[in-house]
Amino acid sequence: MTSPTREWTAESLAAHYVEVRDHTERLAAPLSPEDQTVQSMPDVSPTKWHRAHVTWFFETFLLQPHEAGFAPFQDTYWFLFNSYYEGVGPRYARAERGLVSRPGAHEVGAYRANVDERMRALLDRLDDGTVDKLAPTIELGFHHEQQHQELLLMDIKHVLSRNPLQPVYGGRPAASTAPGAIGWVDVEGGLVEIGHDGAGFAFDNELPRHRAFLEPYRLADRLVTNGEWLEFMADGGYERHDLWLSDGWARVQSEGWRAPFYWTEVDGVWFEHTLHGTWPVDPALPACHVSHYEADAFATWAGKRLPTEAEWEHAVALHAADDPAGSLDRSASWHPSADLGAEADAPRVRQAFGDCWQWTSSAYLGYPGFHPPEGAIGEYNGKFMSGQMVLRGGCALTSPGHARLTYRNFFPPGARWALSGVRLADGGAPSEVGR
Amino acid sequence: MTSPTREWTAESLAAHYVEVRDHTERLAAPLSPEDQTVQSMPDVSPTKWHRAHVTWFFETFLLQPHEAGFAPFQDTYWFLFNSYYEGVGPRYARAERGLVSRPGAHEVGAYRANVDERMRALLDRLDDGTVDKLAPTIELGFHHEQQHQELLLMDIKHVLSRNPLQPVYGGRPAASTAPGAIGWVDVEGGLVEIGHDGAGFAFDNELPRHRAFLEPYRLADRLVTNGEWLEFMADGGYERHDLWLSDGWARVQSEGWRAPFYWTEVDGVWFEHTLHGTWPVDPALPACHVSHYEADAFATWAGKRLPTEAEWEHAVALHAADDPAGSLDRSASWHPSADLGAEADAPRVRQAFGDCWQWTSSAYLGYPGFHPPEGAIGEYNGKFMSGQMVLRGGCALTSPGHARLTYRNFFPPGARWALSGVRLADGGAPSEVGR
Amino acid sequence: MTSPTREWTAESLAAHYVEVRDHTERLAAPLSPEDQTVQSMPDVSPTKWHRAHVTWFFETFLLQPHEAGFAPFQDTYWFLFNSYYEGVGPRYARAERGLVSRPGAHEVGAYRANVDERMRALLDRLDDGTVDKLAPTIELGFHHEQQHQELLLMDIKHVLSRNPLQPVYGGRPAASTAPGAIGWVDVEGGLVEIGHDGAGFAFDNELPRHRAFLEPYRLADRLVTNGEWLEFMADGGYERHDLWLSDGWARVQSEGWRAPFYWTEVDGVWFEHTLHGTWPVDPALPACHVSHYEADAFATWAGKRLPTEAEWEHAVALHAADDPAGSLDRSASWHPSADLGAEADAPRVRQAFGDCWQWTSSAYLGYPGFHPPEGAIGEYNGKFMSGQMVLRGGCALTSPGHARLTYRNFFPPGARWALSGVRLADGGAPSEVGR
Amino acid sequence: MTSPTREWTAESLAAHYVEVRDHTERLAAPLSPEDQTVQSMPDVSPTKWHRAHVTWFFETFLLQPHEAGFAPFQDTYWFLFNSYYEGVGPRYARAERGLVSRPGAHEVGAYRANVDERMRALLDRLDDGTVDKLAPTIELGFHHEQQHQELLLMDIKHVLSRNPLQPVYGGRPAASTAPGAIGWVDVEGGLVEIGHDGAGFAFDNELPRHRAFLEPYRLADRLVTNGEWLEFMADGGYERHDLWLSDGWARVQSEGWRAPFYWTEVDGVWFEHTLHGTWPVDPALPACHVSHYEADAFATWAGKRLPTEAEWEHAVALHAADDPAGSLDRSASWHPSADLGAEADAPRVRQAFGDCWQWTSSAYLGYPGFHPPEGAIGEYNGKFMSGQMVLRGGCALTSPGHARLTYRNFFPPGARWALSGVRLADGGAPSEVGR
Repeated sequence: MTSPTREWTAESLAAHYVEVRDHTERLAAPLSPEDQTVQSMPDVSPTKWHRAHVTWFFETFLLQPHEAGFAPFQDTYWFLFNSYYEGVGPRYARAERGLVSRPGAHEVGAYRANVDERMRALLDRLDDGTVDKLAPTIELGFHHEQQHQELLLMDIKHVLSRNPLQPVYGGRPAASTAPGAIGWVDVEGGLVEIGHDGAGFAFDNELPRHRAFLEPYRLADRLVTNGEWLEFMADGGYERHDLWLSDGWARVQSEGWRAPFYWTEVDGVWFEHTLHGTWPVDPALPACHVSHYEADAFATWAGKRLPTEAEWEHAVALHAADDPAGSLDRSASWHPSADLGAEADAPRVRQAFGDCWQWTSSAYLGYPGFHPPEGAIGEYNGKFMSGQMVLRGGCALTSPGHARLTYRNFFPPGARWALSGVRLADGGAPSEVGR
Repeated sequence: MTSPTREWTAESLAAHYVEVRDHTERLAAPLSPEDQTVQSMPDVSPTKWHRAHVTWFFETFLLQPHEAGFAPFQDTYWFLFNSYYEGVGPRYARAERGLVSRPGAHEVGAYRANVDERMRALLDRLDDGTVDKLAPTIELGFHHEQQHQELLLMDIKHVLSRNPLQPVYGGRPAASTAPGAIGWVDVEGGLVEIGHDGAGFAFDNELPRHRAFLEPYRLADRLVTNGEWLEFMADGGYERHDLWLSDGWARVQSEGWRAPFYWTEVDGVWFEHTLHGTWPVDPALPACHVSHYEADAFATWAGKRLPTEAEWEHAVALHAADDPAGSLDRSASWHPSADLGAEADAPRVRQAFGDCWQWTSSAYLGYPGFHPPEGAIGEYNGKFMSGQMVLRGGCALTSPGHARLTYRNFFPPGARWALSGVRLADGGAPSEVGR
Repeated sequence: MTSPTREWTAESLAAHYVEVRDHTERLAAPLSPEDQTVQSMPDVSPTKWHRAHVTWFFETFLLQPHEAGFAPFQDTYWFLFNSYYEGVGPRYARAERGLVSRPGAHEVGAYRANVDERMRALLDRLDDGTVDKLAPTIELGFHHEQQHQELLLMDIKHVLSRNPLQPVYGGRPAASTAPGAIGWVDVEGGLVEIGHDGAGFAFDNELPRHRAFLEPYRLADRLVTNGEWLEFMADGGYERHDLWLSDGWARVQSEGWRAPFYWTEVDGVWFEHTLHGTWPVDPALPACHVSHYEADAFATWAGKRLPTEAEWEHAVALHAADDPAGSLDRSASWHPSADLGAEADAPRVRQAFGDCWQWTSSAYLGYPGFHPPEGAIGEYNGKFMSGQMVLRGGCALTSPGHARLTYRNFFPPGARWALSGVRLADGGAPSEVGR
Repeated sequence: MTSPTREWTAESLAAHYVEVRDHTERLAAPLSPEDQTVQSMPDVSPTKWHRAHVTWFFETFLLQPHEAGFAPFQDTYWFLFNSYYEGVGPRYARAERGLVSRPGAHEVGAYRANVDERMRALLDRLDDGTVDKLAPTIELGFHHEQQHQELLLMDIKHVLSRNPLQPVYGGRPAASTAPGAIGWVDVEGGLVEIGHDGAGFAFDNELPRHRAFLEPYRLADRLVTNGEWLEFMADGGYERHDLWLSDGWARVQSEGWRAPFYWTEVDGVWFEHTLHGTWPVDPALPACHVSHYEADAFATWAGKRLPTEAEWEHAVALHAADDPAGSLDRSASWHPSADLGAEADAPRVRQAFGDCWQWTSSAYLGYPGFHPPEGAIGEYNGKFMSGQMVLRGGCALTSPGHARLTYRNFFPPGARWALSGVRLADGGAPSEVGR
């Protein structure tokens, strides 16, 4: 599942466990029992399901094999809160998670408390040898829960968007500054290496580190903005079939796309549904909640293209202006906000991690030599390597400490409810027009 | 909308208002906020939606025209809690009621309290002339709320059935006594009258009272039991196409019907989901939760037929053993329970009102001379007169005082989540086999 | 299946057999092998399927039981050309009839010739006793084939309508004369009798003749015209929810209905697809190809209502101006054409049989005492008595000699591809507005 | 669209035109007008549509711009036979091609003859300069028609498969010899080049030739056989979720996959529908008509993986045993037949081009630097670069001269009606287990 991890001790594991688990509860705190129950589409899960499922992970993969005299908190939870691990047993149908009113939000809280208590007891008893043995799975549990923290926020954003009362989760719009024109970061390419190098945690799909050959290319130094998206729209972007992939054009027509997902036009003004309410679209912020099809059409319209994931990773490794370990710690802001400070001497890759996930032109497939781990945990990533596109970076809803250079996020090309935006790429030679 | 009502005074209206409104809250009391939020299929509405919609009725049709300085409690509720009155304005899509987490169960309670307070004030100010003018609409509000009380219970029964934890609403199974063989009540027929005769409340679809010609016929003195339904199943009832209407047979195959709606077979034993949990099927109780198609197939199998609604009403008027005004007051039991006491000298029509609604062979159409009232309230019944079948009587979930002889309930022929059962009929002449 | 028939002899049976069978081939003659292959929607069957299925009927119900040394023409045809007789064996899925390219139109012709030859041999050998025994089934075969003759034309009309080249089946538009205002035929009602009285052929669903009570009423003396339908449209008929049944309004919106089925608007002018090409809508002709929902909405708009089938039959029996036995012989015209000659002294029911089937307000259910015959032939009508509405009369595509006073045609309320139109009814008292 | 082509003259163009066009008609000759009309699923097109569409291509892209006094053969054909070129005008819905009975097979023949005559006249008048200018588009027309020749056969195979009479297109099963165990061709990898090198015709998607880095790997020297597929099935291949991609497993369950597409089990024996009838599955022949999901699951079961398209192309370039230019000329056999002669000294890549297309693990995306040509012809390939997987090689239905080393075929991962099979790959190092 994972590469060798950092040096864990029983104490640091216990401390980090509390931190991650508490963060989930803080995110859910503004939500009523009713909010936590609704599933607004099959891709979305109810808040209380997220809270329970991440708990089920610790109960199943840590307590069951390692707790003396293990018995599940509730037999039935076993079935209800398994998400996709076929190897663990039958699963409750994903699209029907919103039909289950019980256990309620409060009972899920009791489940969490019970597993936390038992996990604490387990961690208390670990000696040094056992720490090394269990740390990879525990750390996977941390990152798994962080993934669901981000999904919890994306999902409740969708749930609240379906309510004509336009309810608010919390927060307020960020101040923004209009960015300058896109600058271009030149990258030499050649035979480069990408993928996780073995230091620190990584999911299995980031392995193995391997070589790839890149022609010279250029990468935009910032994300496409709402203002630029409005230009695309004004220029007939959603009406011109020649800009679109065939599947994308079919969706434009069947679903009536004419703007990013959460935008609504009222009397000629575009508004955007956000977690802090419905606000006029801010042209300075990065365009977000666009599908891969829209990202590709925009790039074609702009005479550019989307980067491959290897191009993205290699350029960010060389030229990143914001540091994933540092600047991401802004959990208070779940709106996209640009980190576009004073211009440096040469263009650098900015907005890599903290605003929107960035669609690449790469299909989500296994790296050369990839093979998933044995057992149910091996179902984590590999079986989804079909029909999806890779996104890189991170977004304003990504949990602190969760993003990293080699992270491979993925969604189907038509998905729009995630915080997905666009960074353009271009061929290195002036005469070359990308796709 | 309605026939002339009983003699109302401001005091009796106010007292009955409290009684009806409190009953709704008593029915919802055992349900958590999460329970009240779920919509398990498009036909089902969330509990908190029922509680709010019946309140919206009073606010819209009583307070809006008659309250001085009227302003709605919340503008948005106007939109959210309108069910099907196109004349009142745009409606929120029925199938999406379960997507709306806010207002929550508690806020709906506040809405109810506010409207109750304002209704009380309105009723306080009524003089005698105004009582006569408003009483028909207020009384309609009572009956409308009682309809939703029954639906609230049918709906939450369905919601809880989708939960693999088999949750309980409340109550416990009733004691039952195995009934004897079906007895047959002979009815002479001829030119009879059916429909509401003008005394007391009735919905518009029960009017006008009119003549119909009936050949001599016989009506079963009790409902078909679970035991008899098990015989039908054992005899291949769900596998023999020759017993079924063509549309019914298509549903048997497409939906895999092989028993009544809430039945499940575990190791050869049939269990039934009820509001008080999952219990072994009791052969002495009336068979319930069968579609019109199943009722018709059962009757064909039995060599009998379903009665027309005129046959049902005429026979019950002449021969009923249980009195709708009296024996229905058993709100504590929401399971079907047979009122099958000591045998009378001659067979009489029993179980007319308190166990299961009884499918008839009559399509739901307007009576000769029927025309709906003017305005939005006229949308109450007439526009649904297509594609549905009439059921007569009442059921164990029907609110006290709500059933009556001329009441016309209706559901599509494939509906199964209502408490619908079977009373057989037969031609009067021994040689005639009905279909 | 049928009531006692007219006096048949072996000779008259053989002569009528040739006549009916030849008529089918004449109707198919203008159609290419490709035309005969297409199934444009599940309700439609390919022409060559119709030609084969009616042949299968004679092979299955006459030759199989009565031909010495019977062997089927082709085993596989047994399966392919059974339509809905579950009792005969497994059926080929109706919606997939258009996937079967072989046997082709020519091979179907060979099948027809073979069965005709064998039927001729069978009829040659009949003695008087056997004539009486077989005549009912043979006569049923005649009427069955005539039903499919009408369907063949309705179906190919639909097939050709889906072709953007606007192909023509044949014929030319009829001359028409603008009719005067609708006259009203007053009918006294009372206890009347309807249903087949035993003389001549009838389908099982026309039996038994029985009593029904009718209040006094009035019936329009002609059908609603295209001109009147254009007025309905101009008055917002397709935009006003208050005119429509709830299911009908849902279809208006989901399917975008805004005119009768085969109408198209080009630059503000309405055109109609017909078997003889696409022509401007003629306001003098009867409105046709409207669903029951549209017929009901039109009647509501006009302040009238649709008649019940008992009202239609009783009035036509008393007051018909055109004689089913006589005036129907106009097979050369498949367009609706009004037989609206000089005005008689008193209004009479005109256009009963030769223009459009007329929607009634009656659901298609069994008459009191109805029961289908034993065996597979019993599947003919009874099992379809659910979810459909009765139409009365006949239409311009009905085969000569096929229409009659007691005939009960039926379609689902949303069906539009049949030649279905509107005759209005009204309550007898001037002050009564029907709905 | 294409790379520089071979040296064409007016004479060689005209001669090749006749050859390609005649081949289409030879393939259609065994099919009746009815056969040529049916569309058995949206992916399939009727034979007469294929014949007309390829003709439309020459009329639109050659005659329209270059014929003096051009007028279309029929205005309406313009609309009917445009397949996916949005730039040319509105298109007739793909899924409705089977609804169009006219023009019939014969009229399509007339259309073909007319365009052939006009094309001949055009080619007659070409001087040397015009030859160079028009040759790329004419040559594209040849290859376009050849693609449709293959599709015509795949499609009619599907059409006939839906007919319960099991009709035959033609031909007979090939003799086969059981192959030995799979041999493995070792490939060193490194920085290699793939893509079209500029000599001869290629589609735009084979360009530009570019560098890719490959780790050492091994490629199977032959395709997986039916016999091996039966082993996979016997070992529970279709029941073990752990072998499948998540989307693939969903399809296994929703569509009930348990064998390759055209296989049917009768009394324990597996039969396969082919163009020459239904025959017992021959274990010596290559497994065919499997989806990408099945190919991937089979490879996982075998402890191997599918090759990338770069691995496939590089290995075939180095080690092919059959020569695409030579051995493909076997148009008489449309069944899969293995060219597995005497063993060579060292394993070589066999069955590259003449049996089944071979699924790769590569998503169908643009090569680095790919950009489609301007205008409607640019819609040829680029807009389909989403949601599909690459297949390499060719198959027994591929037209003579159409296959080549750099050819990139593509289908959605769930497609099964194409002749798609499996060639396994493996990592170079013994310890590495591919997935």
